Amino acid sequence: MAEVQVHTWEPNSNSGKPLFALAEKGVPFDYHYVSLTDFEQHSPEYLAINPAGTVPTMIHDGHLFTESTPMCEYVDRAFDGPSLVPADPKQRYWMRWWGRQTDINAAALSVLGWHTFLGPMARQKSPEELEKLIARIPTKERRIAWATATKATFTDEQLGNARKQLGEWIATLDARLAVSPYLAGPDYSIADTVAFANFYALPMTVPEYANKANAPHYIAWLKRIYARAATMATFNNSRSLGKRAFEIAAKLEAEGE
Amino acid sequence: MAEVQVHTWEPNSNSGKPLFALAEKGVPFDYHYVSLTDFEQHSPEYLAINPAGTVPTMIHDGHLFTESTPMCEYVDRAFDGPSLVPADPKQRYWMRWWGRQTDINAAALSVLGWHTFLGPMARQKSPEELEKLIARIPTKERRIAWATATKATFTDEQLGNARKQLGEWIATLDARLAVSPYLAGPDYSIADTVAFANFYALPMTVPEYANKANAPHYIAWLKRIYARAATMATFNNSRSLGKRAFEIAAKLEAEGE
Repeated sequence: MAEVQVHTWEPNSNSGKPLFALAEKGVPFDYHYVSLTDFEQHSPEYLAINPAGTVPTMIHDGHLFTESTPMCEYVDRAFDGPSLVPADPKQRYWMRWWGRQTDINAAALSVLGWHTFLGPMARQKSPEELEKLIARIPTKERRIAWATATKATFTDEQLGNARKQLGEWIATLDARLAVSPYLAGPDYSIADTVAFANFYALPMTVPEYANKANAPHYIAWLKRIYARAATMATFNNSRSLGKRAFEIAAKLEAEGE
Repeated sequence: MAEVQVHTWEPNSNSGKPLFALAEKGVPFDYHYVSLTDFEQHSPEYLAINPAGTVPTMIHDGHLFTESTPMCEYVDRAFDGPSLVPADPKQRYWMRWWGRQTDINAAALSVLGWHTFLGPMARQKSPEELEKLIARIPTKERRIAWATATKATFTDEQLGNARKQLGEWIATLDARLAVSPYLAGPDYSIADTVAFANFYALPMTVPEYANKANAPHYIAWLKRIYARAATMATFNNSRSLGKRAFEIAAKLEAEGE
């Protein structure tokens, strides 16, 4: 058994952050796959580990970590290996600033994620089965949220607004990456870990914005991060959604400089 | 002119975070008061400094800082003085965990803040004046939000839910403070700075929850932080809302151990 245990879904969004951070740091860990599409995060087994029923959960040295971005900062601080946090105080500020902006803009992405992936998956289950799965969610607020989410279909206006917000966000990323190779400064940092975990698939999700003509610096940054050994080692453990990374990386490569 | 310039409102909520952090650190700074009740954060003079029209803004070494919690971490890292960030990686994780929870639960507090303070203040202005003040807000989304907020009166149910959420949050704080003198661990840290900046007045705002019988450890923590030299030095610069701190501190003191 490795010193670090990670219970999480795919290398995707919050679920992916500790996977990428631990791989970048070179820390061995046991990866316990929690299938969100089977609602395994609400299973009695998982709730015994993390009563809140959220992913990811990381366990190290008898401690439980459940907040994904502070978890990455912990990984950097607790283990040897390449530094993922800049020494310069201003770059640190920007690392955290981009982390927060990532969380804010990931909300628009989750609208599209529900629409194209998790929503249809959930609706393949029978109403009886869904009801049972929702009944075991720990808090009333989250039961209501999931019941709504599994039934909800978004209006064209909601989907259009989410796409538009992502377009503006890509422009923000692109402007930053025009003057800096990585989000916090000259070196890869946790800002890149968390932004990439959320936005690695935008060329597939919102191709009208996430393309080389419209956002060359964002695309070049994606390619730099796809080319990292830790990135591909992490996607190699994907069982479902994250597998699209290989298609996206190949397409970006084929488009050339 | 001091090396650090802070443009902000009261020692209250996000506005207060850099004021408390700089005072704790012992860093001299120039405090430029921005009156939210006069909508000065949307004045042309202020927008020239921070085009987003948000408070606080801190300026140091030619750089602009606008995110209040990462700004406190910057203050700790960029200046000499007592450390406000624990050396231990687990305590650092908890410092950031409590910072995030503070932001989430501050939303319930802002409902009550609008109801009792900012809303009535805004409604004292004539509709013509309000319209003019709102017209100069930089983004359309925030113009709509402010126009709604200045007109909105909350339902009893909304106010009741906000109070109830704060009651649950006080129970969470109290449980933590039953086993630890400060939020991140044995020493004062930025977790305490940001939580206190938001929740120093709960004994006045939600006395049904924030009292010695119901939450003794939270009340003892408040008293410990009120007793810090940096805290009172900061409240001494208050011009409006923050002045209530003196009344609260005196009342807590009078109630004894």
